[in-house]
Amino acid sequence: MNFASDNTAPASAEILAAVADANRGAVPSYGADPVTTRLRARLNDVFGTELLAHPVGTGTAANALALATVVRPYGAVICAEEAHIATDECGAPEFFMGGAKLITLPNRDGKIVPAQIDAVMARARDGGVHHVLPEAVSITQATEWGTVYTPEEIAAIAAACRAHGLKLHMDGARFANAMMHLGCNPAALSWQAGIDVLSFGATKNGALAAEAVLFFNPTLAEGFERRRKRAGHLWSKMRYLSAQIDAYLTDDLWLRNAGHANRLATRLAAGLTALGTVRLVQKVQANELFVAMPPSLIAALRDTGAYFYEWIAVPGIDLPVVRLVTAHSTTQDEVDKFLSLAAAASRKLAA
Amino acid sequence: MNFASDNTAPASAEILAAVADANRGAVPSYGADPVTTRLRARLNDVFGTELLAHPVGTGTAANALALATVVRPYGAVICAEEAHIATDECGAPEFFMGGAKLITLPNRDGKIVPAQIDAVMARARDGGVHHVLPEAVSITQATEWGTVYTPEEIAAIAAACRAHGLKLHMDGARFANAMMHLGCNPAALSWQAGIDVLSFGATKNGALAAEAVLFFNPTLAEGFERRRKRAGHLWSKMRYLSAQIDAYLTDDLWLRNAGHANRLATRLAAGLTALGTVRLVQKVQANELFVAMPPSLIAALRDTGAYFYEWIAVPGIDLPVVRLVTAHSTTQDEVDKFLSLAAAASRKLAA
Amino acid sequence: MNFASDNTAPASAEILAAVADANRGAVPSYGADPVTTRLRARLNDVFGTELLAHPVGTGTAANALALATVVRPYGAVICAEEAHIATDECGAPEFFMGGAKLITLPNRDGKIVPAQIDAVMARARDGGVHHVLPEAVSITQATEWGTVYTPEEIAAIAAACRAHGLKLHMDGARFANAMMHLGCNPAALSWQAGIDVLSFGATKNGALAAEAVLFFNPTLAEGFERRRKRAGHLWSKMRYLSAQIDAYLTDDLWLRNAGHANRLATRLAAGLTALGTVRLVQKVQANELFVAMPPSLIAALRDTGAYFYEWIAVPGIDLPVVRLVTAHSTTQDEVDKFLSLAAAASRKLAA
Amino acid sequence: MNFASDNTAPASAEILAAVADANRGAVPSYGADPVTTRLRARLNDVFGTELLAHPVGTGTAANALALATVVRPYGAVICAEEAHIATDECGAPEFFMGGAKLITLPNRDGKIVPAQIDAVMARARDGGVHHVLPEAVSITQATEWGTVYTPEEIAAIAAACRAHGLKLHMDGARFANAMMHLGCNPAALSWQAGIDVLSFGATKNGALAAEAVLFFNPTLAEGFERRRKRAGHLWSKMRYLSAQIDAYLTDDLWLRNAGHANRLATRLAAGLTALGTVRLVQKVQANELFVAMPPSLIAALRDTGAYFYEWIAVPGIDLPVVRLVTAHSTTQDEVDKFLSLAAAASRKLAA
Repeated sequence: MNFASDNTAPASAEILAAVADANRGAVPSYGADPVTTRLRARLNDVFGTELLAHPVGTGTAANALALATVVRPYGAVICAEEAHIATDECGAPEFFMGGAKLITLPNRDGKIVPAQIDAVMARARDGGVHHVLPEAVSITQATEWGTVYTPEEIAAIAAACRAHGLKLHMDGARFANAMMHLGCNPAALSWQAGIDVLSFGATKNGALAAEAVLFFNPTLAEGFERRRKRAGHLWSKMRYLSAQIDAYLTDDLWLRNAGHANRLATRLAAGLTALGTVRLVQKVQANELFVAMPPSLIAALRDTGAYFYEWIAVPGIDLPVVRLVTAHSTTQDEVDKFLSLAAAASRKLAA
Repeated sequence: MNFASDNTAPASAEILAAVADANRGAVPSYGADPVTTRLRARLNDVFGTELLAHPVGTGTAANALALATVVRPYGAVICAEEAHIATDECGAPEFFMGGAKLITLPNRDGKIVPAQIDAVMARARDGGVHHVLPEAVSITQATEWGTVYTPEEIAAIAAACRAHGLKLHMDGARFANAMMHLGCNPAALSWQAGIDVLSFGATKNGALAAEAVLFFNPTLAEGFERRRKRAGHLWSKMRYLSAQIDAYLTDDLWLRNAGHANRLATRLAAGLTALGTVRLVQKVQANELFVAMPPSLIAALRDTGAYFYEWIAVPGIDLPVVRLVTAHSTTQDEVDKFLSLAAAASRKLAA
Repeated sequence: MNFASDNTAPASAEILAAVADANRGAVPSYGADPVTTRLRARLNDVFGTELLAHPVGTGTAANALALATVVRPYGAVICAEEAHIATDECGAPEFFMGGAKLITLPNRDGKIVPAQIDAVMARARDGGVHHVLPEAVSITQATEWGTVYTPEEIAAIAAACRAHGLKLHMDGARFANAMMHLGCNPAALSWQAGIDVLSFGATKNGALAAEAVLFFNPTLAEGFERRRKRAGHLWSKMRYLSAQIDAYLTDDLWLRNAGHANRLATRLAAGLTALGTVRLVQKVQANELFVAMPPSLIAALRDTGAYFYEWIAVPGIDLPVVRLVTAHSTTQDEVDKFLSLAAAASRKLAA
Repeated sequence: MNFASDNTAPASAEILAAVADANRGAVPSYGADPVTTRLRARLNDVFGTELLAHPVGTGTAANALALATVVRPYGAVICAEEAHIATDECGAPEFFMGGAKLITLPNRDGKIVPAQIDAVMARARDGGVHHVLPEAVSITQATEWGTVYTPEEIAAIAAACRAHGLKLHMDGARFANAMMHLGCNPAALSWQAGIDVLSFGATKNGALAAEAVLFFNPTLAEGFERRRKRAGHLWSKMRYLSAQIDAYLTDDLWLRNAGHANRLATRLAAGLTALGTVRLVQKVQANELFVAMPPSLIAALRDTGAYFYEWIAVPGIDLPVVRLVTAHSTTQDEVDKFLSLAAAASRKLAA
């Protein structure tokens, strides 16, 4: 019962098989191989547009490279205060951007709104050269609180971005989970909604280590390839990176994986809510739950061998909050066993 | 017949099998998994010392992170003028080090010598704050000219480093090939010879994408882990990186692979020399050959479908120079076919 | 009537005279001149300790160089959310530190307290390599809200810093104004209270362009001089920089200048408070006033030709807030004229 | 007799007077003052074109900011191997550019030629993403060997730059000395010859600390002002910087100063050549001499109290080479005394 993170999960068998399949003979290095060519075509097809795709090995690399390509060193990126780029990447965006700042916005559910962007830009315009210049907005899909931006919400943010001359980046580490929640297609959730550049995640949802930076407007990608090389993120044997993403997108594997994880998150949420002893502090829209629990229940569950993280405190809630994450590899048995243990522990605590 | 580079080669079957074997169930992420623990123990065992090992996905990342950890932004690294870090990493060391310089030294065979280091340091001492401060030396093993430093040559460089307060880094992208040439053990070629930090390569010799930064003096590694994270080089599913290197070191796979590549390079060198139409411009000590050839022979060989790169011109040699690289996956048949085609082409040209 | 900033003020005649006096004959460049030697001795004398002093031309340079010397690129600096380094230096600290972050703390009067530092460090310890590592605290004296840290408050912050292994930096752009408010000596307000490195400002208080970075613990200064050179902040004709600071410290010029500015700020505060139409939103302890005013009064005062800035809104105060700054060159006549105009405008508005 | 450098010289009286004259009353800070406005107009007038001028305090700042504005972090700058930016700025260009490289070219007289640029670009085009991308050429006027590029030589370099899409920067630390040698006007030596951005030096030729970055094509200046601010090079009391340059350009002060220094350099060269014991290793075209001298003569001259630097060895010359620099403040008496001492020492050595 490991609900610590979807990055504790193994890879999908189909993805491993694709890597093995790519392991034949000598092929040109650095992306000039047939697997990478096939991947590019498949991404165009999946997203319904001619895009520029650059695979890398980690989500932090994808985010930091994407932002550094569209933001100058004296610039800034506007994002939610819990954004992974702001809290969990040890300053990677700042490093790759050459010192540009992140301007973080408070929020209740992981989502920022256009009025906040307007307010930041009003202050920035006043400040002149003493202040960094916001050049991009970054949103996370699904958000760090497990919620999902609708295409309409994204379009409203994109409109604010266009009004202020900002580029719009999406950290799509859980893009597939958001799509499955919304039941929409990839285009609707990305370029059609106004996203300029997407960190398209696969690692958390079934790959070994594979993400792709997708530029929907190729003119924004200038310099990306040299930036990737000088950051050490250009794989010489690129086929093994491309093969993962190619398999991920084949036969809807990515959607099946995300759908599975989402369904188990919903099942877990329903079961926990029924207990009466815990409370969801955010809507469950993807594969993450944030649950306020009595400390004694947390301790009892950990004693049973369940893994999960205690999260940051939530204002107005006096119980500790834990995060539970389901993955493509989580089984219904694990969920049900956890629920049954939680029920037993709840009864014991009530007694 | 692909002699373009050892990074066009596929991965060893044993390494793919180890990746598949690691693909079981949920395990802690970011290196707290059992495969990474096993790898650390194995590296200690192979190198005969307690070292600090940090896997990363590419050689450029290994080099740039290693150097950034031991050199300050106002510092400098002394290296050969053909060093991969100086010529083929698009400025990665400068980026990771925050702008520190590379001071490149001319040489005839890819190797630098202690007197060159002494001369650089004499100038640097004069210069005071107007000049960057050399803080490390980086040597490549095997070198970019396919030659190999002996343990004695390394020890002499290390002595110069100690005398001047410099750290000694080795870019070991082809460390195994150098070892097999010398017939020595890993310790003799690294820490016992005075290496402080080693970029231990596996990708070119049979892995998919895996290198390890090895610190033989753990006090030099301060900050490495945060630097790796903020460079996007900390894999969340670390097990797939560690499994590659672990399998690479199991049952002497790395040595068998390198030995095979070296033997075929020697066979290729002997066959080419016998032709009379070409000339080796460097000793063949690892798995790379540098061969001066008439342009017409180059063209004829390319027409047969052979892949290889034309290299930079060599002073004093008026023919173009090509580089031929053998890999763990190169077959004797390929080598013999290439030699027979070269012989046929040579005869035709002579006619 | 220019109350916009103390950097609109001219230089003290004594400082100009010292620059002219230094303008004799050829002297060694880059700080090896007699004026710089004299300055070093004088600073030791004024601060009552052997310190390491490095003059630079601007306060932003002093702050950014000081912080970059004691914080690594993967590190962080804790400061108040209004800190000049965070809001008004266009990312200079991040640039000089190689991408390290500022962690900004909310506060009511420009001052941070030890418990806030403890809280940041508790979170940072949990986070491991995914999070930047706080390595320094920076406080501003006088603060951006015109208030002054007492030696005891600084000592308490310094104790928290020592407990957590943090260095303590002071942005002393208005150090003299703080000293005059407290009536203490330079040592009591700096190294005796636990400051490790001080940006000692002179520009705002009578110099043309001159600040000094003072390291009270010389072992912390490693690399500073090369960092200054590579940032373009080493003046070749250093004598003209040193002469300014030397004159600033001669015959208590700095204290007389700051005392004058503080007295006029107090006079201005008293006069404004008596009007009944405005309200001070912070204590006036140095040479800055923050005054909540009706918009019509602001407009009326600007019509009379007075210069001042409207400041950021203060939570809980529904009037706009303006900042008024007095300088060494402000005259009592200017203050009284402004007060009389404010009184007239207040009467008219009340009518 | 100080011939160590023109930066050991004092400032011109006219420049000090202008600083004192600017020291009246409160004026807007950060360049919105009347002196800076006047300077901008004067620069347009002197250069005969509408340019964008940004004063800074040091030549290193001018060079590094200019280059960082036109070169991306994955870019490179082509320059002579003795260029000040490459040898004497402790890596400032690399720091400001975010890690971009300098590609240094060998030469005999401090000057690079178009064919060298063509050769670098041919290699860079081959290299693709593994190599940094040259984006600018930087030349020094007068050069580090005291020689002067003619307008025709510059125009030829500029034509190569345009052909390859490179920007052309001039480090004009001794621009006035070059102009006086050529007898041409500022426009002919800068924008009319194809210079895009000029570091226009005043410090070495009579200012206290003042240079200006001049963009002849304002569209290239994007971001410069924020880069200057975040580098700590925006003076709050800008008037004192602008006043220096304004006075420098008034009544031909800059040309008189440079003409004087050049004349004394010529006199010194003539006198030394006549001795028979020494040899000029470069043409004397500005205010620097490079003289091969017997070590005993060097020692004898130093014993008389003369200051000068021993320079780097010159290939093919077996005597040490010293550099002698004249300044606006050097007197004919000093030169003649030095010559007479050199003559006496030469006789003694010959005896």
